[in-house]
Amino acid sequence: MSTNYQEHYLDWVRDAFAMEKQAESMLEKMAGRLEHYPDLKARIEQHIVETRQQQDLIQSVIDRHDTSRSVLKDAMGKMAAMGQAVGGMLAEDEVVKGAISGYVFENMEIASYTSLIAAAELVGDTEGVRVFTTIRDQEIAMAEWLYTHLPDVTEQFLVRSAEPGVEAKK
Amino acid sequence: MSTNYQEHYLDWVRDAFAMEKQAESMLEKMAGRLEHYPDLKARIEQHIVETRQQQDLIQSVIDRHDTSRSVLKDAMGKMAAMGQAVGGMLAEDEVVKGAISGYVFENMEIASYTSLIAAAELVGDTEGVRVFTTIRDQEIAMAEWLYTHLPDVTEQFLVRSAEPGVEAKK
Repeated sequence: MSTNYQEHYLDWVRDAFAMEKQAESMLEKMAGRLEHYPDLKARIEQHIVETRQQQDLIQSVIDRHDTSRSVLKDAMGKMAAMGQAVGGMLAEDEVVKGAISGYVFENMEIASYTSLIAAAELVGDTEGVRVFTTIRDQEIAMAEWLYTHLPDVTEQFLVRSAEPGVEAKK
Repeated sequence: MSTNYQEHYLDWVRDAFAMEKQAESMLEKMAGRLEHYPDLKARIEQHIVETRQQQDLIQSVIDRHDTSRSVLKDAMGKMAAMGQAVGGMLAEDEVVKGAISGYVFENMEIASYTSLIAAAELVGDTEGVRVFTTIRDQEIAMAEWLYTHLPDVTEQFLVRSAEPGVEAKK
C-alpha cells in the first residue's frame, strides 16, 4: 500500500517542480513587459527570486526519494495542460488581466501544495511537509499581495485608459 | 472620461456573465461524474444553484446599463480563452486535480469580482458594488470549502487508489 502512496506522491512532487518552472518563465515575461506599474513589477521580481529557491527546495525532496532524473520530462509534459492553460492568460498584455491571472496561478500553486502536504503526511515525509509548507507560505503571501493591490491596479488602468495618449495596458 | 470607464466596466460585467455560464457547465460536468465523494458532490451541487442566481444578478446589472443584448456574444468569445483554460482542467477525471481546478476557478472569479467592484466604485454604480460583493462572498465561501476539504479528498484518493479493485478517480 505505501508503495502506491509513494508513487502518487513522487509524481505530484515532480508536477510541483514543473509548475515552478512554468511560474518562473511566466513571471519573467510579465515583469519584462510591465512599464507603468512599478510596484507590481517589483513584487513580481521578488517572487521570481523566491520561485527559483523553491525549485531547489523541491529538487531536494526529489533527490531524497528518487535517483533517476530522466522521469522529470514526463512530469513536465503532464503539467503542461494545467500550468500553460493558466500561464497563457498571463501572456495577455493588459495589466488587469495579467494581475488576475497571476493571482489565479498563485492559487493553483497554493492548492497543489495543500494537496501535496496531505500526501507527504500520509507517506510520512516530515521534511517534505516542512518544505512544501514553507513554499506554500510564500505563494500565499504573493497571492495576498496581488489580491490587495488588484483594486489599485484596476483604478490606475481605468484612469490611464481615459487619458489621451497615455499607455495603460502594461 | 467617465464614458471610457463605463465602456471597460460594461465589458467586464459581460465577461463576468460569461464566466458564470462557464462555471455552471463545468460544475455540472464535475458533479455528474463524481461517484465516491458525496460531500464534494453535494457542495458543488449547492454552488450550481448559487451560480444560476449569480447569472440573474449580473444580468440585472447589464439590464440597467445596456439595452442591447447582442453584444453578449462577443463577451462570451473573449472569456473563452481564460475560462475554458481553467475549465479544461476540471474535465480531468481525477478527483484531486478536479478539486484543485475547482479551487483555481473560484479564485479566478474572486479576483475578477474584486477588480469589478473597484471599477463599479469608480463609475459610481453603487448597486453594482452591492451585487458583485454578494457574489464574491459566495465564491469565497466555495473556495474556502474546497481548500479546507482538499487534504481529505487527497487522503481518500490515495487510500482508495491503494486498495485493489476500488475506483478512486471519481
